[in-house]
Order: sequence, then structure tokens, then C-alpha cells
Amino acid sequence: MRGFFPPRTGTGRSALIPPPPWYYSGDLLTIEYRTDPDRVAALLPEPLRLADTDPAAVALIWADWQSCSESREELLDPVRSQYKECFAVVRCSYRGRVYSRCVYIWVDKDFAVARGIHQGYPKKLGSVHLTRPHPYGPAPRIEAGARFGATLAAGDRRLAEAVVTLREPADDNGFVNAHPMAHHRWLPSIEPGRGPALDELVSSGAASFEGGTPWAADAELRLFDAPTEELADLPVGELIGAYYRQVGVCWNGGTVLDRGTSAAD
Amino acid sequence: MRGFFPPRTGTGRSALIPPPPWYYSGDLLTIEYRTDPDRVAALLPEPLRLADTDPAAVALIWADWQSCSESREELLDPVRSQYKECFAVVRCSYRGRVYSRCVYIWVDKDFAVARGIHQGYPKKLGSVHLTRPHPYGPAPRIEAGARFGATLAAGDRRLAEAVVTLREPADDNGFVNAHPMAHHRWLPSIEPGRGPALDELVSSGAASFEGGTPWAADAELRLFDAPTEELADLPVGELIGAYYRQVGVCWNGGTVLDRGTSAAD
Amino acid sequence: MRGFFPPRTGTGRSALIPPPPWYYSGDLLTIEYRTDPDRVAALLPEPLRLADTDPAAVALIWADWQSCSESREELLDPVRSQYKECFAVVRCSYRGRVYSRCVYIWVDKDFAVARGIHQGYPKKLGSVHLTRPHPYGPAPRIEAGARFGATLAAGDRRLAEAVVTLREPADDNGFVNAHPMAHHRWLPSIEPGRGPALDELVSSGAASFEGGTPWAADAELRLFDAPTEELADLPVGELIGAYYRQVGVCWNGGTVLDRGTSAAD
Amino acid sequence: MRGFFPPRTGTGRSALIPPPPWYYSGDLLTIEYRTDPDRVAALLPEPLRLADTDPAAVALIWADWQSCSESREELLDPVRSQYKECFAVVRCSYRGRVYSRCVYIWVDKDFAVARGIHQGYPKKLGSVHLTRPHPYGPAPRIEAGARFGATLAAGDRRLAEAVVTLREPADDNGFVNAHPMAHHRWLPSIEPGRGPALDELVSSGAASFEGGTPWAADAELRLFDAPTEELADLPVGELIGAYYRQVGVCWNGGTVLDRGTSAAD
Repeated sequence: MRGFFPPRTGTGRSALIPPPPWYYSGDLLTIEYRTDPDRVAALLPEPLRLADTDPAAVALIWADWQSCSESREELLDPVRSQYKECFAVVRCSYRGRVYSRCVYIWVDKDFAVARGIHQGYPKKLGSVHLTRPHPYGPAPRIEAGARFGATLAAGDRRLAEAVVTLREPADDNGFVNAHPMAHHRWLPSIEPGRGPALDELVSSGAASFEGGTPWAADAELRLFDAPTEELADLPVGELIGAYYRQVGVCWNGGTVLDRGTSAAD
Repeated sequence: MRGFFPPRTGTGRSALIPPPPWYYSGDLLTIEYRTDPDRVAALLPEPLRLADTDPAAVALIWADWQSCSESREELLDPVRSQYKECFAVVRCSYRGRVYSRCVYIWVDKDFAVARGIHQGYPKKLGSVHLTRPHPYGPAPRIEAGARFGATLAAGDRRLAEAVVTLREPADDNGFVNAHPMAHHRWLPSIEPGRGPALDELVSSGAASFEGGTPWAADAELRLFDAPTEELADLPVGELIGAYYRQVGVCWNGGTVLDRGTSAAD
Repeated sequence: MRGFFPPRTGTGRSALIPPPPWYYSGDLLTIEYRTDPDRVAALLPEPLRLADTDPAAVALIWADWQSCSESREELLDPVRSQYKECFAVVRCSYRGRVYSRCVYIWVDKDFAVARGIHQGYPKKLGSVHLTRPHPYGPAPRIEAGARFGATLAAGDRRLAEAVVTLREPADDNGFVNAHPMAHHRWLPSIEPGRGPALDELVSSGAASFEGGTPWAADAELRLFDAPTEELADLPVGELIGAYYRQVGVCWNGGTVLDRGTSAAD
Repeated sequence: MRGFFPPRTGTGRSALIPPPPWYYSGDLLTIEYRTDPDRVAALLPEPLRLADTDPAAVALIWADWQSCSESREELLDPVRSQYKECFAVVRCSYRGRVYSRCVYIWVDKDFAVARGIHQGYPKKLGSVHLTRPHPYGPAPRIEAGARFGATLAAGDRRLAEAVVTLREPADDNGFVNAHPMAHHRWLPSIEPGRGPALDELVSSGAASFEGGTPWAADAELRLFDAPTEELADLPVGELIGAYYRQVGVCWNGGTVLDRGTSAAD
């Protein structure tokens, strides 16, 4: 049986996602702020701990992607390559090293959901929009004063909305999402009452990266509550910074940091 | 950390799916036909084998569901309970027992995708439609001569379309999907070149069931090819039967039949 | 050139909607309440006036439809027949007669938008959900104590949500939407600064109707504000009643009550 | 009552579309080909006639837009500004002058549908995708050899798909869509058996325009049949050319060329 992900078949052609490496072209709109550190701590399972410095920092990131496999065929049938996402990232400490960790994420395509299951991003479907730069007409250029809007909804409820105004070139596009990711891949047992069937702490990051000049920005950000979401439980305190950057990324797997013992029966 | 599925939090409120038991109300439109048995065999990983009798039988099933957790709260926010699916089922033999096995399935909500990952259904997103019975106006009643249409699309391509015409009450709604399910829960390692991180053969079925009178039907069915799908590689040969039935189901977990050895490192 | 609606061609096959009569099977969930009568008056253009009795009454109605043309072919390709809508109705007086008037409406298919342009319903796209009755499993039967949820969103924002609990059979399903409709068909001139190109006051109603027993219900209703919507500017005061009913309807055109003089040039 | 389009209210805030001028930033992928001239003629109502030169030319155009009103507020809530469309354009002659004419068009937002009713574009909803250029990663730059895919689906069926490969800078992006548009604004009477309530031949074009270098391209184009569509009845004969161009456009109304006499009663 072949295929990097179910459904697996004799050919592998039906698999929801192709094997890595996966290649991405996209625009990133990042807003970093400080929240209540206890709220961050509550999202870090053992043995992860709060980062020593600035433990209450959160990055809320919107991304507008085109992605593809080694064959690049998805780019020519763009319903299979284009997707948008919005995700919340915090930092944590594990064995003395600082990691980034995505705690919430919404995407708008099924292949992106499946990649999240592989990478440990806790993905749900959502409706994600962000203004795109354009060289002509009313849409913004990437330049001082340019304004970009970004919104997130899920379950027919708006969860977040932001407006950023570019200010000046910057050295980077933030520090919260700048570390290797430390994610859990976790799946319950099919047997009620058992421990998880899969309980891995994994790490991964970009295998290669290129990007344009990051721009620092001013930002307004509002989060909204919803019955099945806890993003608004990371309330926006002090704004740290906002950024806009166009990037190209390759992702090609990661490493297992730790396996839970709870999977045994 | 709480939550039956990621994202897991201190409260569990954000989890994409709640813990079982899961309850379902829905309408099932089933078309059973014979295909090339080699095509079925090619979808059965070791140690599964073709069923001894009628090994080439396929059921293509459309379902229009409302589902909920023990709290039943999802029913009152129906964007969280309503979904439709279309799935292809074959039979297989494992250790002398016959099982049903879903080989392809498309759903239209993220919570249904996540339940599929738990249950071993190889779900993708699709656009699924089927005619609903109604007591007034032009829509069909459930009675002789009533006609129901059913369609499936994914990736902006139509994959299947059917029309069934009810003929008479029947004893059941088919035999292909009538056994416990034998599914794989399979996830690749995050580390390239390693064997799978999860490789379980699991079985589950309805914990409880109620249903109305099944109706036998005549059927027309057409399958269409697509670059990322292999449903049409189970070509429609002899039609065995078609059925319409309204049901109520509870699902509450399953059992592990076997664990692969390939996960070890 | 043939076709009841653009695009018109030599065959008429491409037309977004077929000619009436149009046939509907559906479920109606109605909540009637009183708002500020000035808010109703503000939505009635001359020569329409507030109804003499109970002028502040509003009906907010959710409907889950299957519809078709004389050929009924849409029922067998249900992506072309199924849609849901949520609409707000008030009453008004014109030349001494009471009419119903839809002031806001959201639907989830393009053919429904086009029918609204023909009938004078001021339709937008929205995401509409309502619980469906079902004879098995956790979904409600149509009986005392049954609970139905209903929600509306547009532009990625939730605009309304309701829960109704059936109480007892009733004589009707409300009075606000019980009159012939008095709607404007209004289209601006393509030439800036001119009066409207079309400015008709039209009336229509069901050409035929059948329906099940209406059920009276208790209701909770919440409306939410949004930048491009004014539904919440009809705030919920005293609840008048709530109703659930399954119906079959035929619509087959209407009559012009009046033509504006502003279209002249 | 205020509002450029229904629903009209005291404030005008609910109107589905704001008054022109409308501003657009977008990417245009154009494929021009020759079809059977009788098929073009069959889409031209009296008094329009085939163009004298190259009457069988068709342009199939994909566009990826961000659009806004004078306030530009839609750009910051991009669910209200971003949309994609695919449309087929032919040329015609009216009173000795050549016009472009859109004969089929699919868009993916309701505000775009409403603008089409105003402008005489015969819009339906569809699912439209086209590859976007990007400066980093696997997506194409706008340069020789860059490949862009484009697809169209409606009613859960794929209607068109294309791949273009940029070759060299060009002087323009085609001639079929280069004239003022001659469109009908046509709406049937609410009264069965009457002539149309609105029957205008209108003309409009860009009030202002800016654009980048057009690129000439090689193209592959496939059209697919569907029960409710006739795009494939403009079969692809000889390819004339293909083009890619980024543009900024302002639209600010048009003029009435002629009014039908059939609206009288």
C-alpha cells in the first residue's frame, strides 16, 4: 500500500497529502502581544514550561499560501495549492531550549488540515482573509503607510480581526514564531478508557527559507469569544510589534523529541 | 491538558471533537455493485484478504447526518452538527471473519474529518448532496416511485452521481456495509525514512442502532475520473441493489485488532 | 434569445433560473416579536405606510428548502435545488390593504439570489443553518418539547441565532408573513445621477400551498450587529410567538401594483 | 430610502453594493481563440451583429480581484473586497461600432453578482482559481517560462481549465475584451406572459486604468460540458494568443445605448 497519508492505495495517487518536501510561497502578517502568562502556561503540557524571558508573548499570524509537492503539479491546479491560515503561537522551554509552539490554528483546505496532523499543528477549518499587496489600483503596495486587514472566522462566528499599517523596514518579522516548533502529535485510543494511541513531542522547522524585507507595522487587534474556541482567552495586553513579510519556505520533516508513556496498554 | 482531540487545553473546550459516545440521525442512500475483484484486492493491505463470497461487491453510500455528543448541544447550533458524506465500502476477511472497510470517503465538515482520523475512515473534504424526503411539495415522500438524486464532488470536479427510484420495502439496506468495520489508523513518522508512527488495525461498529423500513430501489450510477482520486478505478459492473433508509446510530469506540511492527525504531 | 434570466442564449439552457412556476418543499421556523415601530417605518418607502394594527411586529423566519421548476429535474441534482434562507418580514399598508414585506434576506445559493431579484426580495448570500426534524436518533421529532436551533451569518459574522422549543399544535404559523408580499423591484440607472432604471412596487404570493400542522413554540432569539447589516436595528422587544411548520408551496408570478416615476429621463 | 442596491434602508448601510466609482486591483489571465462564428452569432440578440473582422474570436479570462468603493473600507475587511471571476467575451457590432460583450461569467461573491446585474454581466456563482505570482518560493514570478494554472467550476462540475506559460512581454493583453462593453440589462416582468420589465442595451468601460507590462503566453485550454452551462458550446478552435497582466481599474457607470420596446404594457 502506498501513499503518505490515507486513503492509501496501490498507487498512492489518492493520498490526501504527498510526501515532503513541501514548498510554500506566501505572505505573513504577524502581530505580537503580551497576554496573561498563566494563560500561556495553561496551554503547555508537561514537560514543556514557560520560556524564561517574555513568557507571556503571543504571536497571531495570518498567512496566504501557495504550496506544492516536489512535482509542483499542485501549482497548476490551484484549488489544490492555495490556502490561507491564521494561527496563534507561544514560546516554551524544553530541556533548556526555547521552542515555538502553535496552540490554535485555522486553515481553509483539507490538505492543510492533514499536514497539520502530521506536523502537530492543531488545525480546524476556518474562514481566513487578509489583504494582498498589489502593484496597481487601490490595494496596498508594500511600503510605509500601506494598510492590510486580516480576519478569522470559524463556525460562522468571527474570532479575530486586525488592521496593520506598515511603518518601516525591520530586521525580522518577530521573535515568537522564530524558534523550532515543539508540537504534540496526539491521538486518542479507539478503545474507551485507554491512554492515547499516539503521544509524541516532535520538533520541526523550515528546511530552507528565503524572504523579502520584513516591514514593521502598527496594529489594531480584536479577539472575539465563541463557544468552541479559546483564542479570546489569550487576551490582548501590551502590543509588542507587528510585521509583514513575503517568504518562500521548504518543510521536510522533523524529529521526535519525546514519546509519552501513556500509549502503552 | 484536556480535550479528546487537538487543540487540547486546560478546559478541553477547544477540542475539534468531543469524546464519544457520538449520536447520529440521518438518511442513507446505498448503491451496491460488483467491480473487478482485483481492484478491491489492491485496496486491502496485509493481513486483510478478499472476502470469500462476493469479493467484488462495493457499496457507495451517501449520508445526510445530524450528529452530536452526549450533551446534544451541537444540535442547537446546527453548523456544528449537520454534515453530509459519501463513502465507498468493500468487504474483507481477517482471521476468518468478514469485515466491512471504507476505502474512500468525503465529508463536508472539519469535525467529521477529525472523527474519521479517530475511526480510521480515510476522509477528505468534498461537496456532497442528496435529495431529502419531505411530506409536502415536490420533494419525494419515502414511497414506491420516489426518486432521489445524489452527487459527490471534490477539488471542483464531480466524482459521482446517482439517481435511485424506490421500489418496495426491503429486509435490509444491503450487505456490504453490514459488518463491523476493519480500518487502519495510520500516520507517517515525522522523521523521513522511518516507518509509520501509528499503524493500527481497529474495528468498530454501532453501539446502538434504530432505523425505519429499508426501501429497495432501482439505481443509475456514474463515476468520474480525477487526478487525485481513484473512486472511478472501482468501475461499476453489475448492479446488486440500491436502498434508502432513515436511521439513528450511536458510536462509542472500538477495539484494536492488531498493531503493525513498522512503528518501532 | 431565450432564457428567463441572464445569461440568455439561443436555447435558454444557461439561464440562472428557469421560468415559473417554481415548486418548494421546506421547513419554516418563524419567530415573531415587536420592535420599535419607528424602525419599521424607516424601512417603508413611500407610498407604503405602517400597518394600522401591531405595526411594530417583525417575523424572523428560517427556511430549509428544496425547490424546482416544472421539469423537477433540479431535485435529482440537489446542488441545484437545495438552499436555506433567513429573512425578516414586516407588515405595511398600501391603498388600504395590508401586505407583508421582506426587508432583509440571506440565502446560500445563486439561483435563490436571482429569484429574489425577480420577486423583489433583497437577497444577499449568507450561511444559514437550522436543525432538521428526523424520525430516529438524537435529532428532534416534531412534537412537544422538541428543540430546534437556527443561525445566520454573513461576511464571516454571526447575525442571528435562535432556539425554539415546540409547545403544542397551533392554528397557523404567525400573522406577519401571512399577507401577499409588497416588494420593490429597484435597479439604479447605469448612468450616474439618473433616477432608477427600474422602480416597481409588485405583489405576489403562493399560487398554491399545502402544509402540515403548525406548532407553537417558545423561543430565544439574539441578533448581532455587523458593519454592513441593519438586522440588529430591529431590536427584539416583546416576543409574540414562535412556530414550526413543514410546507409545500408553488410560486407563479405576481402583479405590478405601481411604477415609480423616477425612471424617466 | 437610501442605498445603491437592495436592501435599501434609511441609512443605505445595508445595500449589497455601494455606489460607484468602484476600484479594482487584480491579475488577468486571458486566452483568446477562434470558435465557430455561428455559435457567437447565436449569442448576439438583435440589433447586435457579428463583428466584421475575426467574428469568431473568443476571450476566456480569469481574474483575481480586490475591489472597493470610494471609502476603500472593504480592503481592510477583505472578505468584502476579494473575489475571483472567469468570463467569456466576444465582440459584436452595433451601429457601425465594435463592442466587447461578456456572454458568460462566474464569480465567487455576492457583491460581484450584484455588480453584474448593474453592469449587465450575466453572473452566476462559481469556484474560480488561478495561480498567483509571488517573489519567493515555488509560485511563479512574472517572467519568461513562468506557468500559471486556472480553473472554473460551477454546480460541483469543472467547466474549464487552462495552463499558460509566459513567453515574452507584449504590447497588449488581447483584442477581444479591448472595446467598450455592450451589455443587456434585462429582467422579466413579474407578470407571466408580459414582455420584460427592463430591457436596456448599455455600454460601459473603465473610467481609468493602469497596468503593468502584458506578457504573451502559450496556452492549453479545455472546456467541459454541464447540464446548465453552454460555455463548451463555444468550442476551442485555433488559439489566437494568451496573456498575463496585472492591472488597476476604476469603473464609474456607463450609458444607455438603446431601450427595448417590449417593456411596455
